[in-house]
Parts: sequence; C-alpha cells; structure tokens
Amino acid sequence: MKTDEDAIRAVHADWIAAVDGRDLARLLALMTDDAVFLNPGVAPVGREAFATRFSDGHDRMRIHCVSELQEVAVAGDLAYTLCDDALSVTPRAGGETTRLAGQRITLYRRQPDGRWLLARDAHTLSPVAS
Amino acid sequence: MKTDEDAIRAVHADWIAAVDGRDLARLLALMTDDAVFLNPGVAPVGREAFATRFSDGHDRMRIHCVSELQEVAVAGDLAYTLCDDALSVTPRAGGETTRLAGQRITLYRRQPDGRWLLARDAHTLSPVAS
Repeated sequence: MKTDEDAIRAVHADWIAAVDGRDLARLLALMTDDAVFLNPGVAPVGREAFATRFSDGHDRMRIHCVSELQEVAVAGDLAYTLCDDALSVTPRAGGETTRLAGQRITLYRRQPDGRWLLARDAHTLSPVAS
Repeated sequence: MKTDEDAIRAVHADWIAAVDGRDLARLLALMTDDAVFLNPGVAPVGREAFATRFSDGHDRMRIHCVSELQEVAVAGDLAYTLCDDALSVTPRAGGETTRLAGQRITLYRRQPDGRWLLARDAHTLSPVAS
C-alpha cells in the first residue's frame, strides 16, 4: 500500500525532474495556488513570479539540479521534507559553470482530492567556493 | 482557552526575545534535542553548533533581531511558522552596522508533555544593500 510518505517522495522526485527538465507546466501542477518560495537575498516569490523567474533562468542558463531527501514527515494534512540540493548553472551564451549547494525545507498540503502539493519552500543554496 | 496557535506564537515571541537578549539557555530550552538550523552558505547546524555560533556571535557583535509572524499553521503534532526577519549586527570592537533581512520557515513539534519546541528552521537572511 502506498503511504503518504511514499506520495511525498514521489512529489519530491517529480519536482526535481521537472526543474531539471525545464517543465514549468509540471511544476505549476505540483504547487498550491498560494505557494510561497523563499530565496536568500530575494523577496518571497509566489506562483506567477516563480514561473517568470523559472522561464527567464532556463532561457539564459543550462540548469542541472540534484536533490537528496534527508527527511520526510507527515502530520495530518501537512508534510515536510528536508533535502540537500546541488545546482549547476551554465550561461547558454558561454562562460563558467557556477555551482551552488544548500538545503531546502519544503511544506506540502494534502488536497481534498488526496494529492499532495508543494505549498511553502525555503532554500539556502549559495555559490560553492571552487 | 489557549489554542495551539497561541502556543506557537508564544514560542516564536519567546525565541526572538531570547536571541535579542542573548539568552542561550532559553533558546536551548525551546528547541528539540535533534533541532536542525539551515543557513545560507553554511552547513546545517545542530544544537551544539548552534550554541557555539550563538555565543561566538554575541561575544563579537551586538545583535538586534526583529521578527514578524506572517503565518502560523498547526497539523496534529506538527506546526510551522513563516516570518519576516530583520537583523542588525554591529561589531563590539567598533565598525559599521550590517543589516540583514529575509524570511524564515520554522517547524515545531508538540512534545509528550504538550510543549511545542522548535525542531527545524531555514532562513534566507542576507545583507541588505544600503
């Protein structure tokens, strides 16, 4: 039987694959209408600003993302994950690859139809000294 | 009657007052044994490393912290807050004040005795361009 924890792990894997695969439609389908993303040095980003930033970023750069789940916990209709993330970003116009590393705390909410959607996310990704 | 949400708001206020008041013992009493703190550009910090960093930081700097709760949600024995934080940091040896701003997602776990303790925390505080 598929547990809630399995479902959260599947959403996490799906999310990372969609970031890596430049699949904005999939990401939007995996987040709540009121989703909020917290990024170091940037004001909080909602669904629409996320879409703009994501498209702009992928237009300008080749982005490769790896994420390893460290923790998954479910309580009622709320769940969270903590993961280690690594990102490499290479300008499409040419130039050096920047590597970023950090962690992410993500909150998921169970929907009335049973799906789990990403609702809140805070990451600490920062450039790695090379 | 005091709700769980009231209790979480009280822990949040208590936490910020203890950061501001340099009260490490109080902070340790407000966090779980396995607490994890995520900071941009730094490896995740547990209870002991938090204590060391906190003491070192306050020894070297005058730290003033303001935090405004934006959201509080409770689900079973898990709760989270999202808050806007601002920090000013001034070297005790003299020098310019650095201002940082960002947000924080904090996870709390209800203990068997009913207390809510801080278990996970990720912040995006970054220096504010002056």
